[in-house]
Amino acid sequence: MSSAGLWKTLEALPPGQSVPLQQVFEQIPWNADGLIPAIAQQYDSKEVLMLAWMNAEALYETLEKKRVCYWSRSRQQLWRKGESSGQIQELKEMRFDCDGDTLLLLVDQTGPACHTGRRACFYNLVQGESLVVDKPVLIDPETLYGK
Amino acid sequence: MSSAGLWKTLEALPPGQSVPLQQVFEQIPWNADGLIPAIAQQYDSKEVLMLAWMNAEALYETLEKKRVCYWSRSRQQLWRKGESSGQIQELKEMRFDCDGDTLLLLVDQTGPACHTGRRACFYNLVQGESLVVDKPVLIDPETLYGK
Repeated sequence: MSSAGLWKTLEALPPGQSVPLQQVFEQIPWNADGLIPAIAQQYDSKEVLMLAWMNAEALYETLEKKRVCYWSRSRQQLWRKGESSGQIQELKEMRFDCDGDTLLLLVDQTGPACHTGRRACFYNLVQGESLVVDKPVLIDPETLYGK
Repeated sequence: MSSAGLWKTLEALPPGQSVPLQQVFEQIPWNADGLIPAIAQQYDSKEVLMLAWMNAEALYETLEKKRVCYWSRSRQQLWRKGESSGQIQELKEMRFDCDGDTLLLLVDQTGPACHTGRRACFYNLVQGESLVVDKPVLIDPETLYGK
């Protein structure tokens, strides 16, 4: 079955119907770098915390360990979220979108998700002709990552 | 100022401080295709509706008209969300993340955001060894898009 075929099949299914996950893994439309974007959302408050990227290995590890692992594009290596800061993300739910090219992760985020020490990465608000920082730093990054 | 420099400057600002938006526009780290991913979240329920992409023109139009316009990668043209279905997204808030390479749009979505007629695109839930469809179609796509 082609990738588009699998996702088309899912489109037409009523709630409660399913396909085997193994089949899905074979049909993920990875981008040219072998990655898929993953949105992390705090499961209870519903705050959108961040967007990062996963390769296949990061995705499988996240599902197996229920702790979120991304692929760092800048460092070109697996990025086990919280491995240096302690600010881990416990996976509560993983969802694929309608064409399978984006993930939504419902997580329980320990402390700040953002490397700046803010709870979430989206603290830059467009307001008129300005970009305004509207969220405080909760923990100094030097404390989070050591000096 | 380099792109990284601008975003680093913002990192260090306390809440309430800002930079001119024009300066931001010149420092968006567009991907190789000249695009930036945009997460659309329903502003009141906080449900994550979808992820799509914007080029500069789509971004400027969205801010000007307060109606969300994306760039369709499959059709390679501006995609004024709702132009054929009527299911528009009114822009309530636009946010940039910490390194400026992702947008979060708080929107008021009329009806279904998803082309399948479901409210949101993330209806495919990983559950054990299966991918389960867990959201119903609200409006038949044939009704949304005509036949």
